[in-house]
Amino acid sequence: MPVITLLTDFGTKDGFVGTMKGVIWKIAPDVQIADISHEIAPQNIMEGAIALWRAAPYFPAGTVHIAVVDPGVGTKRRAMAARIGDQYFVGPDNGLFTPMIEDAKNAGQPLSFIHLDNPKYWLPAVSRTFHGRDIFAPVGAHLAAGVPLELMGTPFTDPVLLTLSRPEKTSSGYIAHITVVDAFGNLTTDLPAAEVAGKNVLIRIKGMEIDGVSPSYGHRQPGELIALLDSEGYLEVAVVNGSGAKVTGSKVGDPVEVILK
Amino acid sequence: MPVITLLTDFGTKDGFVGTMKGVIWKIAPDVQIADISHEIAPQNIMEGAIALWRAAPYFPAGTVHIAVVDPGVGTKRRAMAARIGDQYFVGPDNGLFTPMIEDAKNAGQPLSFIHLDNPKYWLPAVSRTFHGRDIFAPVGAHLAAGVPLELMGTPFTDPVLLTLSRPEKTSSGYIAHITVVDAFGNLTTDLPAAEVAGKNVLIRIKGMEIDGVSPSYGHRQPGELIALLDSEGYLEVAVVNGSGAKVTGSKVGDPVEVILK
Amino acid sequence: MPVITLLTDFGTKDGFVGTMKGVIWKIAPDVQIADISHEIAPQNIMEGAIALWRAAPYFPAGTVHIAVVDPGVGTKRRAMAARIGDQYFVGPDNGLFTPMIEDAKNAGQPLSFIHLDNPKYWLPAVSRTFHGRDIFAPVGAHLAAGVPLELMGTPFTDPVLLTLSRPEKTSSGYIAHITVVDAFGNLTTDLPAAEVAGKNVLIRIKGMEIDGVSPSYGHRQPGELIALLDSEGYLEVAVVNGSGAKVTGSKVGDPVEVILK
Repeated sequence: MPVITLLTDFGTKDGFVGTMKGVIWKIAPDVQIADISHEIAPQNIMEGAIALWRAAPYFPAGTVHIAVVDPGVGTKRRAMAARIGDQYFVGPDNGLFTPMIEDAKNAGQPLSFIHLDNPKYWLPAVSRTFHGRDIFAPVGAHLAAGVPLELMGTPFTDPVLLTLSRPEKTSSGYIAHITVVDAFGNLTTDLPAAEVAGKNVLIRIKGMEIDGVSPSYGHRQPGELIALLDSEGYLEVAVVNGSGAKVTGSKVGDPVEVILK
Repeated sequence: MPVITLLTDFGTKDGFVGTMKGVIWKIAPDVQIADISHEIAPQNIMEGAIALWRAAPYFPAGTVHIAVVDPGVGTKRRAMAARIGDQYFVGPDNGLFTPMIEDAKNAGQPLSFIHLDNPKYWLPAVSRTFHGRDIFAPVGAHLAAGVPLELMGTPFTDPVLLTLSRPEKTSSGYIAHITVVDAFGNLTTDLPAAEVAGKNVLIRIKGMEIDGVSPSYGHRQPGELIALLDSEGYLEVAVVNGSGAKVTGSKVGDPVEVILK
Repeated sequence: MPVITLLTDFGTKDGFVGTMKGVIWKIAPDVQIADISHEIAPQNIMEGAIALWRAAPYFPAGTVHIAVVDPGVGTKRRAMAARIGDQYFVGPDNGLFTPMIEDAKNAGQPLSFIHLDNPKYWLPAVSRTFHGRDIFAPVGAHLAAGVPLELMGTPFTDPVLLTLSRPEKTSSGYIAHITVVDAFGNLTTDLPAAEVAGKNVLIRIKGMEIDGVSPSYGHRQPGELIALLDSEGYLEVAVVNGSGAKVTGSKVGDPVEVILK
């Protein structure tokens, strides 16, 4: 029983996600379906890309990830499916899969991209506004049911790629950038843990200073602004039992200065 | 492995929906369960009816839809189950299933209604406030497990029906009405696409005018107020990458004037 | 096919819950997974404990409940798993399982507690901030897949227990306390239904008075402040088709005076 995941900016109020599950189970009745997130900010492709990238590696080989953050729906933007490493990804060709593609390239893993132009694997009627239901859900279900990726369309080699956030090296350390503000208000950055592990660091964010990296939230007092290493191995700024985003007034993209002492 | 869907106004904070899934899997361990929505506005039967109607046709034959928007819980309002076309519907007899019943009548499909008055298929103890858990979930699970509908109670023929929104014909076109405001702020109306397809139209909403129907969101500029055809085949008003509801100040029931030029 | 439930304070925006499902299905591909709630207020262990306690009894024997409200993650607080009655519970040892433990003690049911100190059943790399993914999800999945609880660590007998809210007896009746404010704004109290069933009662809350206990919401008029018995058998205060929390300005912990006439 393969797994399908869903990530969208649809919200959960209107039934769009449930509808996609109906389409999937009509084609592949035995698949398990996991929701990754349906609260990606509307049309925010980068936010969707990062959320998918953080979750996907924890799923079994053969998992089919269907991701729909799709401001170009109904235009000539390509619909695509990809084999990246040992998993499948289905969605619009707008950059949503960039971090997985870059990781696979760096690791020398297999990569193939298919332009979904074979209507045999779509619903019979395709709307101009809901390709999640009409194209991506049925294609993902057919993939999970064992239809070879290559039957679903035409190979291509130039998927749209986003420019991912990277820390800048400075004379004293790094300018990192906030990449995720999670539901707790924790602030993940683009600085890999390896750059600060075992070093004395001073962190400046919005005029506030943090001295050193704590082992965990529970090692400091409630309300304290701290730095720690997040669960994916990046530098994070947080407030113990509180919101780092609120206390510092930070948002995605804002700089975090890291000084190696 | 049949599918059960759940639609309620319970929200997802308190565990009520999870509890219903426990009840279902105790009776029918192999069914798949899809959430359609649990964010129907409290006690808003019409909103629940429309959300269910948009999603249900995409589910497999034999699917059991359990819907609980139930201001009359604990009073003498009937609990019901229905066979509508090739699917089952379980919930309070308060109009929630109106659009599916009307579509089935128009299509000449089979229809049967059962008053759920046989406690054999309920939980042993029935509260006065949570029939979703005590009656509807177990009945739906027994249906999915293959118990015939007819064993669950007494047939009846007069389900409560809501009056559904319909466009009014005018000398110059139509007065349509907003039926759904989705999570993006898109405004779906009750005017079928066939009435405007291939015609020159002018649309007036809250004093603003829209000239013509766009093929998709992506064909116009971000921020622009547009009209298009929604994914169920009705006229929709939207703002590209924005909220039509906020920009026009519209809510469900508000009129949209459609002038055929 | 056993059932796993998930209850956290993670929210559903960031993909943390989806990630846990990936981990689970990699180990135990056939389990069903039910979300109980992911909207527990951040770090509010009591709120999580009560939500889990209300839902758990409705799940099949053998269900594995994974609960993660875990302000102490990464410190020396124990990770634990328990057999309580005929179900399993996995999470931090911080009081989350108190009501289930007390009920099992009162009912003379079997109870055993294991300190999760055997890394064989964890993910290979364990972060300091996300034990839901790295320890609790894999342990729960192995339990559901049939690994004996005893293999997962060292027995212990002194789990952390919260002090649960209890009504106070007065000369004229009780001072009850609000234990849950649900998504409708209904106010559940700690007073068991048996204390008021069949009696004439007067209820005082925030200076407002309610005369008698109604059989259901639908027996009174919209907007009316009423008392009734909730679906778990406790006294509840509510506003018909409205919010008892808003109308009375009440929150969890606030007193409700119950006078037996």
